[in-house]
Amino acid sequence: MQELRERILNEGRNLGKGILKVDSFLNHQIDPQLMIHLGQELARRLAHTEPTKVLTAETSGIAPALAAAAALDVPLVFARKRPPLTMDYTIVSEAARSRTQGKVIELMVSTEYLRPGDRVLIIDDFLATAQTITALARLAEKVGARVVGIGTVIEKVFENGRANAQHLNVPIESLAVITSMDDGKIVVAE
Amino acid sequence: MQELRERILNEGRNLGKGILKVDSFLNHQIDPQLMIHLGQELARRLAHTEPTKVLTAETSGIAPALAAAAALDVPLVFARKRPPLTMDYTIVSEAARSRTQGKVIELMVSTEYLRPGDRVLIIDDFLATAQTITALARLAEKVGARVVGIGTVIEKVFENGRANAQHLNVPIESLAVITSMDDGKIVVAE
Repeated sequence: MQELRERILNEGRNLGKGILKVDSFLNHQIDPQLMIHLGQELARRLAHTEPTKVLTAETSGIAPALAAAAALDVPLVFARKRPPLTMDYTIVSEAARSRTQGKVIELMVSTEYLRPGDRVLIIDDFLATAQTITALARLAEKVGARVVGIGTVIEKVFENGRANAQHLNVPIESLAVITSMDDGKIVVAE
Repeated sequence: MQELRERILNEGRNLGKGILKVDSFLNHQIDPQLMIHLGQELARRLAHTEPTKVLTAETSGIAPALAAAAALDVPLVFARKRPPLTMDYTIVSEAARSRTQGKVIELMVSTEYLRPGDRVLIIDDFLATAQTITALARLAEKVGARVVGIGTVIEKVFENGRANAQHLNVPIESLAVITSMDDGKIVVAE
């Protein structure tokens, strides 16, 4: 996606230690038209997996997951990090280490909305170490749902997320692939 | 909005103490087509305020705010409750008591994206006591932006949010108005 690649190159900032700041259009401020395009492209690449549900984790996953779910016309479920008072039902939870929060977070989802038989497409903003994504996959498996695909906006190949998620044996799509952040640079694959 | 009213009446659950569970389409699972319609209707009612930016708070505000921002074709900024490592810049913060989290939360926003001169439309899922909304308004005022309108999906009139936000002197729109949750019922205004 040339549009995304240009935004990363123009607006992204390399904060060091592999942390890419794209808060101007993806993580804090959101460009809605770009987000719709990202969702459409994720849907185009992954519709063949025939998902019945999109699954993501709050917070930064919600916008791309909503855009993809809209394009695929399936419901979206976002795993929560803290149960709100309205989560009065059975939940399943899994731990994941968050890079950008700098700690272990618990992801939880209601068994009312993630169901046995669901074909689950996991969508997230980043594919880095795949800690969040593999935790979401374990959540899906716990309820008897089947993970059918993974879609992310930005992949940092040097953090090995693709290898870490390979055991799931599903298609993995990323719309922009960062090949290096060495020496303060941001290298995005053509 | 008849579509929303029916979803609340069919799927909403009164958990007592004024807590309305609409996790099947708004707060945990999201129906993307409904969400797009909600955003379009909020945009239709509030476009006359000529916003330059939509402001919401993570987590549950993001989906309706994204849908409204897409319909209005302006950027969305979501205030964060915890600063991620990528928030390396000046932030302003405000405290708000969350009903559904049962505690005081801090909302923070980067001064890179909420700017002096911005005309800010605040969008959130619920208008209850308006604690979150008035905290977002204070954030906007702190950076020299101007709040021009407030739009929410569901208003609980008996929690007085409209009165609590009246000092802002801007249009307030809600797409569904709950007039009573007494005796385990859910009464939605026609």
